Amino acid sequence: MSFISKLRNAQRTNNSLLCIGLDTDPAKIPSFLRAYGNPQLEFNRRIIEATKDLVCAYKLNVAFYEAAGEIGWYSLGQTLLKVPPHIVSIGDAKRGDIGNSSERYAKTYLETYRFDAVTVSPYMGRDSIAPFLGSRDQAVFILALTSNPGAKDFQYLSVDGRPLYEHVVEKSLTWSDQKNIGYVVGATRPEELKAIRDLAPGAPLLIPGVGAQGGSLEDAVQYGTDKNGELAIINASRSIIYASTGEGFAQAARAEAMKLRDAMNAIRAKSM
Amino acid sequence: MSFISKLRNAQRTNNSLLCIGLDTDPAKIPSFLRAYGNPQLEFNRRIIEATKDLVCAYKLNVAFYEAAGEIGWYSLGQTLLKVPPHIVSIGDAKRGDIGNSSERYAKTYLETYRFDAVTVSPYMGRDSIAPFLGSRDQAVFILALTSNPGAKDFQYLSVDGRPLYEHVVEKSLTWSDQKNIGYVVGATRPEELKAIRDLAPGAPLLIPGVGAQGGSLEDAVQYGTDKNGELAIINASRSIIYASTGEGFAQAARAEAMKLRDAMNAIRAKSM
Repeated sequence: MSFISKLRNAQRTNNSLLCIGLDTDPAKIPSFLRAYGNPQLEFNRRIIEATKDLVCAYKLNVAFYEAAGEIGWYSLGQTLLKVPPHIVSIGDAKRGDIGNSSERYAKTYLETYRFDAVTVSPYMGRDSIAPFLGSRDQAVFILALTSNPGAKDFQYLSVDGRPLYEHVVEKSLTWSDQKNIGYVVGATRPEELKAIRDLAPGAPLLIPGVGAQGGSLEDAVQYGTDKNGELAIINASRSIIYASTGEGFAQAARAEAMKLRDAMNAIRAKSM
Repeated sequence: MSFISKLRNAQRTNNSLLCIGLDTDPAKIPSFLRAYGNPQLEFNRRIIEATKDLVCAYKLNVAFYEAAGEIGWYSLGQTLLKVPPHIVSIGDAKRGDIGNSSERYAKTYLETYRFDAVTVSPYMGRDSIAPFLGSRDQAVFILALTSNPGAKDFQYLSVDGRPLYEHVVEKSLTWSDQKNIGYVVGATRPEELKAIRDLAPGAPLLIPGVGAQGGSLEDAVQYGTDKNGELAIINASRSIIYASTGEGFAQAARAEAMKLRDAMNAIRAKSM
């Protein structure tokens, strides 16, 4: 199944635009989990179990697994096995290198770990991203306009009267005819999100920043979705997975996820 | 010891600007090494043993270790232990993420693996790089102008009459006063290399592209070094480590490394 069909299907099945970011920091998870052989994996297993009917996607930020060393990579692979097959999995890796090195990264995320999609950085251009575009069943999300303060340093620089991130979107749209290129656009940038949705009406948009980073949910849903009210993947990480640090953390995460999903759907209902 | 002192010291001790890129692809190493428990590590061990008096640095492209899975990360860590302590080790990771995620990447490369330096991508701006700048003993190399064809897609875009990569250099120069920011500049771009050396006269420059990618060694040495003929780290990967695929591969790598080092020194002698 093509990536875009799998995404629409997951969004309809669970009636959800919500993506949960499993940015699982072993130092921040409930202390009682330390009794388990692999606390990071046990944490993820319980979060997924408690929320898998409420999301369209899970996003794993690779930074948090790499930092745990070899056991972290094991946790990453095992966590992916817990994600139901109809739910989208995103490797938030932000990779990008010269062709022969990017091929190795693509092999890692698309073949070894079998993510449905991977985030990539645009700075090195087309041949750094091409190795990820071999199949319409797996997608990339190119960093366009990120949610962090540093986005201001270069992404807004004006090139021919338009910001750099618009050039990134416009140029990269021509790199694949298989609908397997999407964009990362921070929810902290509502007007720019609208402009990017206009530039790429059929692209999936991965939208971080509505949770701990404070972006507006209303704007993310309204400006991020396509004309069917779909294809926006709205991510929250810390605000959901660390909703509680007690024994009931997974149920607290579920409650938080349900609240967010339902709030998104209320906005969708209003705007359709 | 500060990074910049360690680098100068290594360049003087071995009279060398050469960095060997350990882009070790398990599929490309001599087949007789398959008899070893960890062929990738055994390959690296022998290359380092055969060349450690000829280089100022080793660069490990993380893509090639990630792709091997958990055992690849073990190889990465064990390879670093084989690098003599006075030689610079560079983690070619090209990472960059929002602050709390970049902190994890910085922990991985600077604390867990203890690289002397890490390559990072500039697209997400200052807070994506700041976590790597905590100590003057460890440095980042920010991608400025890369050696691949895709460099043309965005890095040359004109902002206020000057190419994007110059903005990246100029702005990021203000991000640390500890001389721990360097730049990646492809040897395939000689004039631009000269411009970047002029913008950042005291910065270490990591210069890939003289081997398999065909950049000019003459230009790399002449334009990449500082006024003392130092601080250019000129990298070759495939042309050295795959010089032979026979039993004598390490000696063939040594011969190739010596040829390159001596050629660089002849150019240095001529231009000083």
